[in-house]
Amino acid sequence: MTFETLTEQRAHGGVQGFYRHSSNETGGVMRFGVFRPPQAAKGKVPVLYFLAGLTCTEETAAIKAGAQWLAAELGLMLVTPDTSPRDTGIDGASGDWEFGEGAGFYLDASNAPYASRFRMYSYVSKELPALIGAHFPADISRSGICGHSMGGHGALTIALRNPDAYRSVSAFAPIVAPSQVPWGEKALPRYLGDDRNAWKQWDTVALLGEGRRFNGMLLVDQGDADAFLDSQLRPQLLEQACKQSGQALNLRMQAGYDHSYWFIQSFIADHLIHHAQAMKA
Amino acid sequence: MTFETLTEQRAHGGVQGFYRHSSNETGGVMRFGVFRPPQAAKGKVPVLYFLAGLTCTEETAAIKAGAQWLAAELGLMLVTPDTSPRDTGIDGASGDWEFGEGAGFYLDASNAPYASRFRMYSYVSKELPALIGAHFPADISRSGICGHSMGGHGALTIALRNPDAYRSVSAFAPIVAPSQVPWGEKALPRYLGDDRNAWKQWDTVALLGEGRRFNGMLLVDQGDADAFLDSQLRPQLLEQACKQSGQALNLRMQAGYDHSYWFIQSFIADHLIHHAQAMKA
Repeated sequence: MTFETLTEQRAHGGVQGFYRHSSNETGGVMRFGVFRPPQAAKGKVPVLYFLAGLTCTEETAAIKAGAQWLAAELGLMLVTPDTSPRDTGIDGASGDWEFGEGAGFYLDASNAPYASRFRMYSYVSKELPALIGAHFPADISRSGICGHSMGGHGALTIALRNPDAYRSVSAFAPIVAPSQVPWGEKALPRYLGDDRNAWKQWDTVALLGEGRRFNGMLLVDQGDADAFLDSQLRPQLLEQACKQSGQALNLRMQAGYDHSYWFIQSFIADHLIHHAQAMKA
Repeated sequence: MTFETLTEQRAHGGVQGFYRHSSNETGGVMRFGVFRPPQAAKGKVPVLYFLAGLTCTEETAAIKAGAQWLAAELGLMLVTPDTSPRDTGIDGASGDWEFGEGAGFYLDASNAPYASRFRMYSYVSKELPALIGAHFPADISRSGICGHSMGGHGALTIALRNPDAYRSVSAFAPIVAPSQVPWGEKALPRYLGDDRNAWKQWDTVALLGEGRRFNGMLLVDQGDADAFLDSQLRPQLLEQACKQSGQALNLRMQAGYDHSYWFIQSFIADHLIHHAQAMKA
């Protein structure tokens, strides 16, 4: 099996599908979802990647983010990858919701035994776009990337490391400084070793600090009733780093919203419009 | 416990909640979801009930139908009841996706041992509206009802039996003639006994045949790629019954759509607008 359609169902005049393939980067079978808007029947359309958070799969955002109705109007293809390799058989890589399977952190691990399989950075930024370009009517020269929580971290770091590959980036309740918060302090040494310098290339605030920029505004929504706000997310660190570095940021604190997909679906329309506008030119 | 809030989360400027209560009609604990639109913070708003289908719960439509964003704009409260009593302990009432728990068929059973608990008709049409009126800012004089599959059957039969209680009714892929299809031929004798005359009051086509009418158009969407179309749904029976009886019907066959919530979420906006227009007067 190199590429296989699992399901395809008509939705909003387009098609919601789920697929799997043998991944070179992660050394196993990866699943992902694709929503093809109606416009894709007539030609190539721009692509928006949505990276999900801890515990999620390729189905989570596809089912819960409520994005398809507007993607169909705007003519955006939505791609929802899984959050990690699966069935790795690696000791310690399963059974913990904060690390390993379901918690790939969108980085390339350098530490044994994880380095052979946990390569979600290269998977999302290189292998998956090539696959999408080969199998779907996607104009991958017009790509945007967004994500939630761990996936917001993924979207921001991937965009900062590859600013020419994406037209636009946005995030919901992202982990902006994994080196400074418990989720990162737990996962990064296992994936990358104990040298904190190695963590910096997978940390949005650190990347901004060392001069990385995205040519366009970062759109970030954050609920102020998010249970992880002060411990894990700390958006003020992003705000400070953007201010110091001159990176354009639109950080919107949303009163009363938590960390859930109810929050995401409440603001997904603004994000889709943000990305669609960047795709036009 | 008479009424208890399980969760409430901010969504689309309003609140998505899940609740449970001790039900007199079904003799046990029932769960349901309510989406309160932002307008409900200022006064009573109209109510739309969504009845889900076989195997579903109070969460299914709340999570998968994609209705909240537009309900928030239109000022509609959405109520999503469970599909049956639960934990009944009745022999034969669990473990079968087509009958019993998860498959209440929105009727009042008359046959032992089901009659004591399986009273989803009275629950949905009487007990639940009273509860909603008591605990939420709902104007229950402005109510609409819709549903999917078994829940479409529920919406149509409940509206035809209580035409003054609902301003509007609609359905996605409803079972329109349970007396004539395998799902009904399996469930109705267990709930109601073998006398087919007793089945008629829980059958949309039969209710229309005996003179029941709804004062307003029935809006029905049906996918033409629905795997249950010819065996269980048979919308042409509804079309014939409406034509013969003079009941207004807008039956829309939707090319390429199946029986899933991808189908529902593709057309939910039209249904919400249909109901919201009926609520205005």
